[in-house]
Amino acid sequence: MAVPVWSVDPRTGKQREQAGAEATAADVDAAVRAAAAALPALADRSVRSRLLREAAGLLEESAAEVIATADAETALGVPRITGELARTAFQLRAFAGIVDEGTFLDVIIDHPDPAAHPIPRPDLRRYKIPLGVVAVYAASNFPLAFSVPGGDTASALAAGCPVVVKAHPDHPATSVLCADILRRAAVAAGLPADTVVLLHGFEAGVELVKHPLIAAAGFTGSVPGGRALFDAAAARPRPIPFYGELGSLNPVVVTAAAAAERAEQIGTGLAGSFTLGNGQFCTKPGLVLAPAGPDGDRLVGALTGAAQGALPGVLLDSRMRDTFLKGAAARAALPGVTVPVEPGEVPGDPLAVRPGYVEVAARDLAGQDAYEVLLEECFGPLTVVVRYGDDAELGAVLDRLPGNLTATAHLGADEAAEPDGSAVALLARLTALAGRVLVNGWPTGVAVAAAQHHGGPYPATTSTSTSVGGTAIERWLRPVAYQDTPPALLPPELRDSNPTRVPRRVDGIRE
Amino acid sequence: MAVPVWSVDPRTGKQREQAGAEATAADVDAAVRAAAAALPALADRSVRSRLLREAAGLLEESAAEVIATADAETALGVPRITGELARTAFQLRAFAGIVDEGTFLDVIIDHPDPAAHPIPRPDLRRYKIPLGVVAVYAASNFPLAFSVPGGDTASALAAGCPVVVKAHPDHPATSVLCADILRRAAVAAGLPADTVVLLHGFEAGVELVKHPLIAAAGFTGSVPGGRALFDAAAARPRPIPFYGELGSLNPVVVTAAAAAERAEQIGTGLAGSFTLGNGQFCTKPGLVLAPAGPDGDRLVGALTGAAQGALPGVLLDSRMRDTFLKGAAARAALPGVTVPVEPGEVPGDPLAVRPGYVEVAARDLAGQDAYEVLLEECFGPLTVVVRYGDDAELGAVLDRLPGNLTATAHLGADEAAEPDGSAVALLARLTALAGRVLVNGWPTGVAVAAAQHHGGPYPATTSTSTSVGGTAIERWLRPVAYQDTPPALLPPELRDSNPTRVPRRVDGIRE
Repeated sequence: MAVPVWSVDPRTGKQREQAGAEATAADVDAAVRAAAAALPALADRSVRSRLLREAAGLLEESAAEVIATADAETALGVPRITGELARTAFQLRAFAGIVDEGTFLDVIIDHPDPAAHPIPRPDLRRYKIPLGVVAVYAASNFPLAFSVPGGDTASALAAGCPVVVKAHPDHPATSVLCADILRRAAVAAGLPADTVVLLHGFEAGVELVKHPLIAAAGFTGSVPGGRALFDAAAARPRPIPFYGELGSLNPVVVTAAAAAERAEQIGTGLAGSFTLGNGQFCTKPGLVLAPAGPDGDRLVGALTGAAQGALPGVLLDSRMRDTFLKGAAARAALPGVTVPVEPGEVPGDPLAVRPGYVEVAARDLAGQDAYEVLLEECFGPLTVVVRYGDDAELGAVLDRLPGNLTATAHLGADEAAEPDGSAVALLARLTALAGRVLVNGWPTGVAVAAAQHHGGPYPATTSTSTSVGGTAIERWLRPVAYQDTPPALLPPELRDSNPTRVPRRVDGIRE
Repeated sequence: MAVPVWSVDPRTGKQREQAGAEATAADVDAAVRAAAAALPALADRSVRSRLLREAAGLLEESAAEVIATADAETALGVPRITGELARTAFQLRAFAGIVDEGTFLDVIIDHPDPAAHPIPRPDLRRYKIPLGVVAVYAASNFPLAFSVPGGDTASALAAGCPVVVKAHPDHPATSVLCADILRRAAVAAGLPADTVVLLHGFEAGVELVKHPLIAAAGFTGSVPGGRALFDAAAARPRPIPFYGELGSLNPVVVTAAAAAERAEQIGTGLAGSFTLGNGQFCTKPGLVLAPAGPDGDRLVGALTGAAQGALPGVLLDSRMRDTFLKGAAARAALPGVTVPVEPGEVPGDPLAVRPGYVEVAARDLAGQDAYEVLLEECFGPLTVVVRYGDDAELGAVLDRLPGNLTATAHLGADEAAEPDGSAVALLARLTALAGRVLVNGWPTGVAVAAAQHHGGPYPATTSTSTSVGGTAIERWLRPVAYQDTPPALLPPELRDSNPTRVPRRVDGIRE
């Protein structure tokens, strides 16, 4: 008997409809084989860009139904999901442009050189080819942009890889709608529908990463879940790359000068950032290092006011709500930790929570293992403010931090305009900790752009790659070099004539 | 008591001299910490290119001593090691040029765009930074080019990463000489000597990959050894990239047309390639698919003559010789396998072996698990010739092959000039199997070039990266993006003024 998968309304906890059934091992095998059969048809780049543009168009055409379904399953709210849909369509089209333009193929051609030192050089022509079928594990907190039609899927299809998506249980009906859109887009582009296949079920996800025909995986989720799949990917007879985005604290450092100049503005900005999307963004600032003393007091005063005024919000599911409440209580219970704004449940509302923050002195935090929990991500609207007395106390906290997606410095005007050694050293310190470094801003909000990097040292990500922005396509490719291969047997991009005009490096010269 | 490490003469089996001592866990820790302290000094690209050029110069100055020592330890012969030294010096200088030129930094700049769709875009500037201290595991068969001063070390230093090298026990004295050269080059470039640190000992190698400050590892060696280290790298609390080159069969397919046209030339060429360097190259053609019938018979006839005329050679150490002889005997003992030229020992010569090859029909090979050994690399001068009757038999063998560094097609003149569907399909099949595809050539000899790719599906390599050629530098870098960061706090490469004139992509335009 198939195990049903239900779409649930988090506002009421009630089942909405059956979205599908959990995939068995046989279903997983069939899905991967069907997707693998689509691989040759994706070799044509023009078909790939057509697929991506069709998908963007169909997603926009179905916007009303998709947004209503996603909101009903996630309670993220119509405005937020409307924006997310626009972002997702933009992302699909951006990758279509990247496919057409061809820089990602990384073409390098060296013509033969019989006089080369130390030995004659043959004709060598290198570009990148798709890895094979990609497994995508959808995220809870972005039912579109990091789920079925999201960045992992879009970049994998752009690379020429068929995709098998493991749906997130928090939005199975949205997943079904989006998979249908992608499959229709594939057919419209002249590709097999099974270019994208959807699966439900926890066990199916575990089977998927072990399947011999899966060539790589993309994941957005928690540290324990992501690490278990990473371990399974590495333990395969033939290991595969596992691109996981697991967890991030996103530290923010406020210098004394910044606090002196803009304490209230920073405190209010922080409240806006850590409560944005009800604290369910992977880039939520979860640890804020603010100076001790009166300027820092003004900062936390403004933070307190703004956090108290923030509205409660609904978390994605009951497990997350329980984990959030337990996590907040554990942090609040530590000796020396104060709770200026207490996070907590909302009576009568099954999944809603109120935002809050805790505060601790850097010297209390330093070197105490029991305080390690303050340096771990707490998913939801909570942040930890650490008050430091001097650079040594600040440095001691930074020394203990794991890897992050982002790290932020709030600097004084002089520090930013004419940095002294201490501001330079702070930026270097933050660079070592993260994949994106911000000055005088907030890390929530990840622009889809060529220069974006959304990744960072473990556990932020399990690789050096990004899952947002144009270079995300690099994850699904491998280079191959052709040596002394007759022109008629070369792919068009590697022929001297370069019929599709891709950017190349030929004998050391960019063309 | 320190465990001594001896340099041994493989021609006699006698100890030459004590080269050093096995590193203890404390030694490993001290080595990694010392190397880590050199990281900030490597941030300056001009210092890195100076280091690499100094190293090339010092290596050439010490050529006589290095070559004599390497030959005494490996018996690879003075001509071969002389060439390898030239290649190694060339490679160091090539990476110096790559560092100066700056393409590897992969700079992408997006200026802010308040009107960007779907949300305003901040100022984003991305480039790549060094990962940290790199562990390099030296190879047995290249005492220079894939060992202490080899491609992994050169590319890691070029990327800005200090290096801790684990010496190979087959050439510890050469390793000491080369480490000394690199350390002197570092000092000459104004860097700490500990920019490069050498360690001896198997246990030290295991400790090294687990050290918290090691950020990535490069390895060239066997499948079991490489896989054990790969597993250790993946199992760390903070997993690190492990770039291993493990093993490769390097299949060669000779079409019926090619055999009809050039049977003798191909047979002789094959003998030259599989016996080159006494069969101790990672790109040795270890499996050759030749047609059944008279043309194929002429090919193996020529192969037999050439292989019988090939001189015996000395293997790197007694373990390799024993493994080679056992491996050759196991393959020869399989039912249906013939041994036209029998490999074997050379009476009175402790490490020498005679080259040979075995032959089997594709239909005997197909589907029999006992024949799996024929599809595994046999390090040394042995190759396996598989005679196929038709495309189906050929395809069935190709279906069973693991990943490879190279795959080669020998085609007829018409197939190369005006390929039919079958030649196109063959190239596509070989492309799926390998990282370098050759037509009408031999895979031994790996040119150091920008377009080179020396890597391939597992077990050829454990990643999608190359260990030879300019793009090998990509392994030791990670991207970081700066958001809204004041110019004075940006690295020079990301400032609008671009003072070091690195290639960049600014607002979508290459400059």
